[in-house]
Amino acid sequence: METFADATAVDPAGPGRWSGTVRPGWDIAGNANGGYLLAIAARALVRSTGRPDPVSVTAHYLAPGRPGPVEVDTSVVKEGRRFATATATLRDADRPVLAVLGTFGDLGGAEGRELRGGGPPDLPGPDECFRMVATDTFPPPFMRHVDLRLHPDDAGFATGEPSGSLLLRGWFRLPGDEVVDTLGLLCAVDAFPPTIFNASAAPAWTPTLELTAHVRGRPAPGWMRCRFSTRFVSGGFLEEDGEVWDAAGALVAQSRQLALVPRP
Amino acid sequence: METFADATAVDPAGPGRWSGTVRPGWDIAGNANGGYLLAIAARALVRSTGRPDPVSVTAHYLAPGRPGPVEVDTSVVKEGRRFATATATLRDADRPVLAVLGTFGDLGGAEGRELRGGGPPDLPGPDECFRMVATDTFPPPFMRHVDLRLHPDDAGFATGEPSGSLLLRGWFRLPGDEVVDTLGLLCAVDAFPPTIFNASAAPAWTPTLELTAHVRGRPAPGWMRCRFSTRFVSGGFLEEDGEVWDAAGALVAQSRQLALVPRP
Repeated sequence: METFADATAVDPAGPGRWSGTVRPGWDIAGNANGGYLLAIAARALVRSTGRPDPVSVTAHYLAPGRPGPVEVDTSVVKEGRRFATATATLRDADRPVLAVLGTFGDLGGAEGRELRGGGPPDLPGPDECFRMVATDTFPPPFMRHVDLRLHPDDAGFATGEPSGSLLLRGWFRLPGDEVVDTLGLLCAVDAFPPTIFNASAAPAWTPTLELTAHVRGRPAPGWMRCRFSTRFVSGGFLEEDGEVWDAAGALVAQSRQLALVPRP
Repeated sequence: METFADATAVDPAGPGRWSGTVRPGWDIAGNANGGYLLAIAARALVRSTGRPDPVSVTAHYLAPGRPGPVEVDTSVVKEGRRFATATATLRDADRPVLAVLGTFGDLGGAEGRELRGGGPPDLPGPDECFRMVATDTFPPPFMRHVDLRLHPDDAGFATGEPSGSLLLRGWFRLPGDEVVDTLGLLCAVDAFPPTIFNASAAPAWTPTLELTAHVRGRPAPGWMRCRFSTRFVSGGFLEEDGEVWDAAGALVAQSRQLALVPRP
């Protein structure tokens, strides 16, 4: 099976321009997963800035991603000593799909003072959790490309018994023991089903308007513990906050996305 | 005294280009407040997109903002029916200061289902709170342009007795009863002192790398209740999460910023 690294690869296609391919099968109901799309754009930005790691990356989702060739136009706004900041637009043949703004740097050996107002979620072992197994419908084909295990208390939506709590905890890894690097974290923060699926009257489709990921460090190999929660559904929007913790117990990514609540 | 609206005004200066002025006195230790700078760029984006309200706006801070003329170059990436998405770069005479990506729309009459995993912070009345009164040093000159009242339990840092808790709650309004619109909210989410000031060994300067604000609706007139908190200091970074609640009890903005922890 193709790796995440292969499925997000980009090639030079002109000054500041990169070509890639949205692969078939990375979709949810026909639309490519948002974190996967972001990783393609971020890989182009890593090449453009010459910095290995995303530090803070924001994507605005403009149109659904369909399988096929895409181009990523990048523009470096500032090259500093420690960080570089750049924009990207990912386009398919017809239209812009993703607008991205990010700051990149080198997170190797990142350390410093540490204060924690929380820790990784408590989870039963991966084999005691609810495995999201890909189907052609739900769970979606995308689940073939990630290995997700949901906390049994949070997996009720999958069997028609939503927990009523806008919380999803679980394990994440890439299949075949592919190492999750800092670009892989951009996939992890958007890989889980929407928290709103556990609300009592779950809407079918909550499109992401914007996703921001903060990467705190390079993950240790192995399973990652993830926690996604929503506190406020209001004004037609909801936020979804994510945390990804690596096997060594370090917080490696935080995320927040703003999604649209479908109008009745 | 000049209003927030005047201090963030922009004028057309060419196709997609706007001119403005970083006013003197909107600074903290010589650097213009980050939310104030963002509001100048966002006002240019409101004009460029023809949409009255920021919905999700992200700024990356590239250099300190100094008083003087600035130009904002904008580029609309997508104009949709409901939203428009655009980028902006705010530059002074020498260099880029701010890179912005945002989605704008019309938040008038925004409503829909409502779920709340929290409410506005409990606060003593504004006159029972600790008022941030501007000085030439600390509290900074910027405090002349906003009216902040801190919860007494969270104001210890101001008298050399940090609370030890990375939490700041308080009231916000603009002086002279100037109405806070959705651009004013971009100022509100960055107007409070850093939460880290309440840590036991507070660093003097925690530069913001990136700030994202989600605007949920137009605020009702009057005092706003605000809450800022930090959960994780790690890898040389910290996040600061904000909530702004209007006088009618509605959540009108959420924010998250990523700041740098100074290296020892």
